[in-house]
Amino acid sequence: MTGERRPVAIVGLGKIALDQHVPVLSDSADFRLAATVDPNAAGIAGVEHFAALDEMLDARPDIRALSFCTPPQGRFDLARRALEAGRQVLLEKSPGASVAEVRALADLARDRGLVIFATWHSRFAHAVAEARHWLKDRKITGAEIIWKEDVRYWHPGQKWIWRAGGLGVFDPGINALSVLTEILPEPAFVAASELHFPESCETPIAARVQMRSVGGAAIGVELDWRHAGTPVWDVRVETDAGTLVLSDGGARLAIDGAVRSEGPDAEYAGVYARFAELLATGGQDMDDRPLMHVADAFLLGRRVVTAPFSD
Amino acid sequence: MTGERRPVAIVGLGKIALDQHVPVLSDSADFRLAATVDPNAAGIAGVEHFAALDEMLDARPDIRALSFCTPPQGRFDLARRALEAGRQVLLEKSPGASVAEVRALADLARDRGLVIFATWHSRFAHAVAEARHWLKDRKITGAEIIWKEDVRYWHPGQKWIWRAGGLGVFDPGINALSVLTEILPEPAFVAASELHFPESCETPIAARVQMRSVGGAAIGVELDWRHAGTPVWDVRVETDAGTLVLSDGGARLAIDGAVRSEGPDAEYAGVYARFAELLATGGQDMDDRPLMHVADAFLLGRRVVTAPFSD
Repeated sequence: MTGERRPVAIVGLGKIALDQHVPVLSDSADFRLAATVDPNAAGIAGVEHFAALDEMLDARPDIRALSFCTPPQGRFDLARRALEAGRQVLLEKSPGASVAEVRALADLARDRGLVIFATWHSRFAHAVAEARHWLKDRKITGAEIIWKEDVRYWHPGQKWIWRAGGLGVFDPGINALSVLTEILPEPAFVAASELHFPESCETPIAARVQMRSVGGAAIGVELDWRHAGTPVWDVRVETDAGTLVLSDGGARLAIDGAVRSEGPDAEYAGVYARFAELLATGGQDMDDRPLMHVADAFLLGRRVVTAPFSD
Repeated sequence: MTGERRPVAIVGLGKIALDQHVPVLSDSADFRLAATVDPNAAGIAGVEHFAALDEMLDARPDIRALSFCTPPQGRFDLARRALEAGRQVLLEKSPGASVAEVRALADLARDRGLVIFATWHSRFAHAVAEARHWLKDRKITGAEIIWKEDVRYWHPGQKWIWRAGGLGVFDPGINALSVLTEILPEPAFVAASELHFPESCETPIAARVQMRSVGGAAIGVELDWRHAGTPVWDVRVETDAGTLVLSDGGARLAIDGAVRSEGPDAEYAGVYARFAELLATGGQDMDDRPLMHVADAFLLGRRVVTAPFSD
């Protein structure tokens, strides 16, 4: 490592910031956590804390890079203010509450020559790059995503996921779609979907989405938050030259049943390594396809009302 | 006019084809209707008719330009086959059932050097270009879309509009969004929405959408299919230099209450003039923003169940 660690501020000190961003930054060779912003949190010992973004932007002109970990609803205004103040921006997934917001933020950053990065952390899981490489020259004949977990365990008390715009089961499901769009060698689109809404909720607790690749391969997507016990986070892709399975959210790769690669979780180390690369070279990395597919799934969704959910 | 009229085939001989495309083509200086394709229609006197697209593509290699007037569900495969057969493509709105489909079709056409054109017919209403010109250098401070019509009068017996993917009240509402995106001098996005679904239907009969411009102006969108009598198809834009009102779906323009421009409906003549221009110059005109905003409105939509609807 050469030079000083770059100061970065975290905006939105919720679960994902505390679980992932803070520990990764404390071990980072590229960055150091220099400030936090959150109106509802007390901050972290030894790190300057602000209740409002504007205060931080004024007080700390030395902090050029900001990580946004706030929920997607309300994200746009904060990110826009940061860009208007000349800051470089990392966006925890989902990068915005709507596809149009993501596109607008990318344009704002491009117009100002600033870095903006939609992280899609699951793309940095151990075996994803290798899966992509293996599929690159193969013909896809079918695929299946199974993404099931217990919402009570993984999202305890997170009210925003149940409010309109909070994505519901697509909050984890968008991770699967971020992996799918990363590894598939051809574009795909949603052809039909069925969304299961608990009576009391504005977002779905489960979904079955039928996608298709442009070449005509069927891609089934099954998302469920009512799954007790060990989560299932698997992507299987059938090709003309064997079957690829990415399991454990991308940590393990098997081809025709034989494990090819397996490794520990270092997704957020990869996220920040990519951010450092973007800051060094400039440019925008704002792939909106995972969110576009979710919006399409809602657009095409047949709604099924299911049992009420309460946390 | 110089040279021969270019032969064009209509695929999907439903209401919009018979009401608009067929009469405009019969009066066109650029095109002549050379074939029709529809498995469920008998065809038009004096015009060769095919039950299937592939038959027409094989039998009539002389027809290089195709107008797709089928419902958006199922549109992708037909348009893809036409592009793969080297044909130039016009797509009646909506250009696809999903945002990803539209993007994929644009890419397929671009890769093959073929013309593809998402028509958005309301953009060709008499006063839209003038509205766009007037707004170009002004600052938007607010806007409102009111789009209300009687679904029983305008869409009699059209079952597909009530099936998932059929867009419901966004089938006319997307016309308003196509005008808005054409005339606004800055990008906008959906911030929240409320969708009113009749108990018996998979698509909404009414919607209230809150949009915002990137600059922060509030844009209200009110869509309603339960409106008896004269339809209301108005877009009002407030600026720092007066209020613009486009009414009658874009036929009339008023500034601060004074009518500036008013003219007869010639939207589809404009659509085909633009298609002729694209065929002469090459290129793709595939703006996906109107559909993106609709998808975002579904993504962010709070659902309200209303009285059952039957046609």
